[in-house]
Amino acid sequence: MQADAHLRSLFNPDSIAIIGVSRSSHKLGNVILSNLIAAGYKGTIFPVNPAGGEILGIPTFSDISSIPKPPDLGIIVLPREKVLPAMKELADANVSAICIITAGFRETGRDGFELEMKMAELARRKGITLLGPNTLGLINTAIGLDATIAQAKPAKGSIAFFSQSGALCSAILDWADGEDIGFSKFISLGNKAGISEADVLESLGEDPDTKVIIGYLESVDDGQKFLAKARAVTDKKPVIMIKAGTTQAGARATSSHTGSIAGSVVASTAAFKQAGIIQVESLESLFDLARAFAEQPLPKGPNLTVVTNSGGPGILAADACEAANLHLARPSTVTLGKLTEALPPFAAIYNPIDIIGDAKAERYRVTLEAVAQDEMTNAILVLLTPTASAEIEATAQVIIDVAQTCDKPIFASFMGDERIGPGRDMLLQAGIPCYGYPEPAIRAISAMHAHYQWENRPYPVEVCFRRDKGRAERTIKQLLKQGISELPFSDAMNIALAYELPVPETRLVRTSDQAVRAAKKLGYPVALKLVSPHIPSRGDVDGVALDLATPREVRDAWLDITSRAQRKRPGAYIAGCLVQTMGPIKAREVVIRFTQDPQFGPLVSFSLAGPSSEILGDISYRLAPLTLQDVQDIVREIKSFPLLRGIRGEEPVNLAAIEDILLSMSQMATDFPEIQEVELNPILVDAEGALVTDLRLTIG
Amino acid sequence: MQADAHLRSLFNPDSIAIIGVSRSSHKLGNVILSNLIAAGYKGTIFPVNPAGGEILGIPTFSDISSIPKPPDLGIIVLPREKVLPAMKELADANVSAICIITAGFRETGRDGFELEMKMAELARRKGITLLGPNTLGLINTAIGLDATIAQAKPAKGSIAFFSQSGALCSAILDWADGEDIGFSKFISLGNKAGISEADVLESLGEDPDTKVIIGYLESVDDGQKFLAKARAVTDKKPVIMIKAGTTQAGARATSSHTGSIAGSVVASTAAFKQAGIIQVESLESLFDLARAFAEQPLPKGPNLTVVTNSGGPGILAADACEAANLHLARPSTVTLGKLTEALPPFAAIYNPIDIIGDAKAERYRVTLEAVAQDEMTNAILVLLTPTASAEIEATAQVIIDVAQTCDKPIFASFMGDERIGPGRDMLLQAGIPCYGYPEPAIRAISAMHAHYQWENRPYPVEVCFRRDKGRAERTIKQLLKQGISELPFSDAMNIALAYELPVPETRLVRTSDQAVRAAKKLGYPVALKLVSPHIPSRGDVDGVALDLATPREVRDAWLDITSRAQRKRPGAYIAGCLVQTMGPIKAREVVIRFTQDPQFGPLVSFSLAGPSSEILGDISYRLAPLTLQDVQDIVREIKSFPLLRGIRGEEPVNLAAIEDILLSMSQMATDFPEIQEVELNPILVDAEGALVTDLRLTIG
Repeated sequence: MQADAHLRSLFNPDSIAIIGVSRSSHKLGNVILSNLIAAGYKGTIFPVNPAGGEILGIPTFSDISSIPKPPDLGIIVLPREKVLPAMKELADANVSAICIITAGFRETGRDGFELEMKMAELARRKGITLLGPNTLGLINTAIGLDATIAQAKPAKGSIAFFSQSGALCSAILDWADGEDIGFSKFISLGNKAGISEADVLESLGEDPDTKVIIGYLESVDDGQKFLAKARAVTDKKPVIMIKAGTTQAGARATSSHTGSIAGSVVASTAAFKQAGIIQVESLESLFDLARAFAEQPLPKGPNLTVVTNSGGPGILAADACEAANLHLARPSTVTLGKLTEALPPFAAIYNPIDIIGDAKAERYRVTLEAVAQDEMTNAILVLLTPTASAEIEATAQVIIDVAQTCDKPIFASFMGDERIGPGRDMLLQAGIPCYGYPEPAIRAISAMHAHYQWENRPYPVEVCFRRDKGRAERTIKQLLKQGISELPFSDAMNIALAYELPVPETRLVRTSDQAVRAAKKLGYPVALKLVSPHIPSRGDVDGVALDLATPREVRDAWLDITSRAQRKRPGAYIAGCLVQTMGPIKAREVVIRFTQDPQFGPLVSFSLAGPSSEILGDISYRLAPLTLQDVQDIVREIKSFPLLRGIRGEEPVNLAAIEDILLSMSQMATDFPEIQEVELNPILVDAEGALVTDLRLTIG
Repeated sequence: MQADAHLRSLFNPDSIAIIGVSRSSHKLGNVILSNLIAAGYKGTIFPVNPAGGEILGIPTFSDISSIPKPPDLGIIVLPREKVLPAMKELADANVSAICIITAGFRETGRDGFELEMKMAELARRKGITLLGPNTLGLINTAIGLDATIAQAKPAKGSIAFFSQSGALCSAILDWADGEDIGFSKFISLGNKAGISEADVLESLGEDPDTKVIIGYLESVDDGQKFLAKARAVTDKKPVIMIKAGTTQAGARATSSHTGSIAGSVVASTAAFKQAGIIQVESLESLFDLARAFAEQPLPKGPNLTVVTNSGGPGILAADACEAANLHLARPSTVTLGKLTEALPPFAAIYNPIDIIGDAKAERYRVTLEAVAQDEMTNAILVLLTPTASAEIEATAQVIIDVAQTCDKPIFASFMGDERIGPGRDMLLQAGIPCYGYPEPAIRAISAMHAHYQWENRPYPVEVCFRRDKGRAERTIKQLLKQGISELPFSDAMNIALAYELPVPETRLVRTSDQAVRAAKKLGYPVALKLVSPHIPSRGDVDGVALDLATPREVRDAWLDITSRAQRKRPGAYIAGCLVQTMGPIKAREVVIRFTQDPQFGPLVSFSLAGPSSEILGDISYRLAPLTLQDVQDIVREIKSFPLLRGIRGEEPVNLAAIEDILLSMSQMATDFPEIQEVELNPILVDAEGALVTDLRLTIG
């Protein structure tokens, strides 16, 4: 309830001061005043107008100090230079929350940025909740609070919306107006000098009027905080978000828009995934999903039944279904019996159930009633094309009737425009999502099923992994003292051993004689690997020789590797070579990496080794700390996973061995924020176990 | 003009007989009659009604034989069993074209299928153009011909639509009605017993009233014919199509809907690509693109400028732009100068050009006028959110004005609903596509640019490749006579040599002694490869040893390979091993395959070797015969192409050598339809050239 207390004065103020109204009706302050009145706000309003008098029938105050009692919320709509002084006066008047509509701060350059920092600092010092600056304002339909400068007014509803783009808010309010969508809360975040998306999310999570949260974000301020808060919210209600700036072009546009640095896309995508946030790619999907989640129960399984009066759209629905990882339910024997009896002989009784173009409403009714009772079906999609025989409004009524007696989610797609319009409107008013095409309906059902799985996932297990933290700490501290960031092999090895990573026995040697002696000690066959601080990637100079079985082969390989390195990189210092016991020859090679994302912190990645994975983007990401579920997911999420599971009768590799390494890495990341980057490449893995044959570690 | 002549009586009949009207107004024949009258059809109509009399003010005829002169088109709307007799009577009355609305044929099972075959045969024998059965009918707005049983009436326009789904036609007519979209022609293909999608495409290609062709298909009857006809059409006008049944679930639904077998998706996708058809994934995209192509000129380059009054949607547009392979144009110095002067200081003058939320119509005007004159820009997208300051209709007028003085395509996205409605309607009526979100606008621009590139592609060069066809022919004939389908190694080699494929010198040997002798003759190092008719994939038994440098290594490898094969596949006959000169060790491995698709014929595929390509679906496809452009495209289309072009400073592989092999394969496919399958796997390729180290050939 802490967030609720924190934001109470913002969302539920008993009194509001508006700083910046005037006799001139064009003033934005007046727009807010009239919006509050129109929305039926019951609290006290203190408009501040230096000229005094009444505005819109409400007495004004000539300055902040003459307001008779401390207002809960102060809204500032003044020219830029007057904002900070007004904030100070509001602070002196013991205001709890401030909303700054005025723009022209961080987004305009250095001066604006510094001014904004001062405002943020003042709010922090005084314990004031600050929304904005550069916000369109906020709405709480439950108490008739419309403190925005927008023109459209949202109806009451169960969707909460927050957005980092103010103008987008106007579009959404207008859209909602036309589409009969209602909102519980509506927040334009603005420049986020005070409260951030994480604060708002937490508060909306606790809001009893909000059933679904949707949001538009360009940047996340504190990734780890966001992740933690969001995860707590998505356990209770769905959060659907669109993240702008997910491409290079978009990221450039973002930084010119808000002056914020777009973090790495893979990190934010991983964060959304780990937080259970439903990330969508377009505004259209955002709204399509919002409506579906707000109005229908979650499907308890992936099995969908499609009922259609037209074969073509049925096929398109089947295509979309497979693409969205849903299954077409197989009707039960009972259902098949009912359908065979009720439908004409040429109807297709298997799913998609095609009741044929001459179907009237009654045929929809018998079919839907049968399907609604079928336990094999978790969700129903009803398609209608306006054939000559179609009874459009009567069919809409049938769907509404069946939905009332059925606990499965029901969706409709009435295809067309003018003729199907009245039926569509009936459905929307009755809370049945009705889309113009089958595809968006199926995307919505798929997202709802994924969220059902999220809500019913096993309780996340965070693992504290066994390690010798002190040993690693001593090594790291000493190197940092010496100003070394790229760890020499022996130190990296030391840390690997402290975290019990499965590394092969390895010796660093400086001559071919030493190499042969080391090989004898380790036992043949061995691998020989070039060591040079100037050649970070051995592959570039063919600096690795494997499976050397005799002293002669070791000597030949030594000569080969070192001379090639000197030829290809004349200036490079060659420190020597590593001699290593050989791992399994027929193993798969995988890579685990760990980096620090500027916004989200420790980011772990997993892929197969080799340039293909990189070029094809077949890499999975998660933010540390990793739960047991996370490590299972990160391994199975890559498209190449079948190669690890084994194809053509091969044995699967030891996945648990990979998962253990991932957990160790997560532990290392949590233990040492000083570690900037770790790369285990390659890790050999076969049916027996895993072997980290090479590692790089950077601290700083 | 042949197609035109063929279909003239269907699309432009001087007279029409409707077989199946009656006094009962519910009859579908009457619906057609009243649709023809309502659409203003000027030709003669002969309704046939056994009861005689007048219907809708038009005198009827009691039977077909009493019609005074041969009608151009006969439309049959009779119960199933009466259709064939009516066709015969129409044939005797010298009708040129017949359209059969009646359903209940191929789609209902064997009896219906056989009846349909008889109807098709009759039409073929009598030289009658047959549309249907099971069609909704057809429309030609140019002559007021509405011979459908649909309810909505399309306005005149420049879009032609054809569809394999009748009910979908109803949806589209209704949608077009509401969206102010007009059609030139409208054809419901039905069961395609007579004319097919290829015939219709050809005819629409020659139709002067049609600017854009859109279509919905579930199956293609004759892939090669379709490809050839479509390619000729797309040179003249855009063809946009949606193909249903592109997933397993969809394919199952297709075959239950139309009784047709869905061909392989990769083959139809390749055909669409090679034919220059724009394939879309959803009905929504079909319409979005139809409108864009019908109303705007093609962008002559990929450079888009986005003008917006709201940063957020600008970023979303930038994201969508990059995803759609478009570039954000860099404004010229002149444009930047104009914008700096005209726009407020906080506006973003780089693209996306953000003229900020307080922009009125005038700010849009100066910006758009500057951008319209900028040669760096090929297309313009105007975004508007309904901010408090937005002048929505005035802005729409600005866009309309600028579009009239500018030869670049202009698109709009007005976001919202009720408030932006009037502006949106103005734009649509003026022929400016206006979408509810930025993403569909950008997808449309991207498709139009791709089509511009298609129209301006180099003239396709078909290559007749050098080969010894006679030598291959003798081998194939002999094997076919012997009933052999999987070619023994020596015969496959013989054909490879006839087509001058770069194969290494190879000997088939039956003992390890022979292997050593062969190795000596070929020169060390050599490769040894297991040969067994029962083990098609050597990889499964580790049946390959490479880089054998000494007789001893050859003997060891022989023992190793053959004993492992016997252990793993106890029943398999081991024919011996191949001894081959070694290809380059550091080469990339690629695979070229060739199969016969049941609908589209010879299908060539290209990928890197190894299970990754298959699992990740990184394989490209084209139908033979391949043009020079095709072979260049198929090699460059795989996502792994950077590995062939060389990463991290590697030399690129010899792409021309791969392309030569592809052309030889195409030639082989064209020469011998008897060849069912060829697999060259792997082909080693390095900077020097390519080497086909293994091949499999199946005939039949």
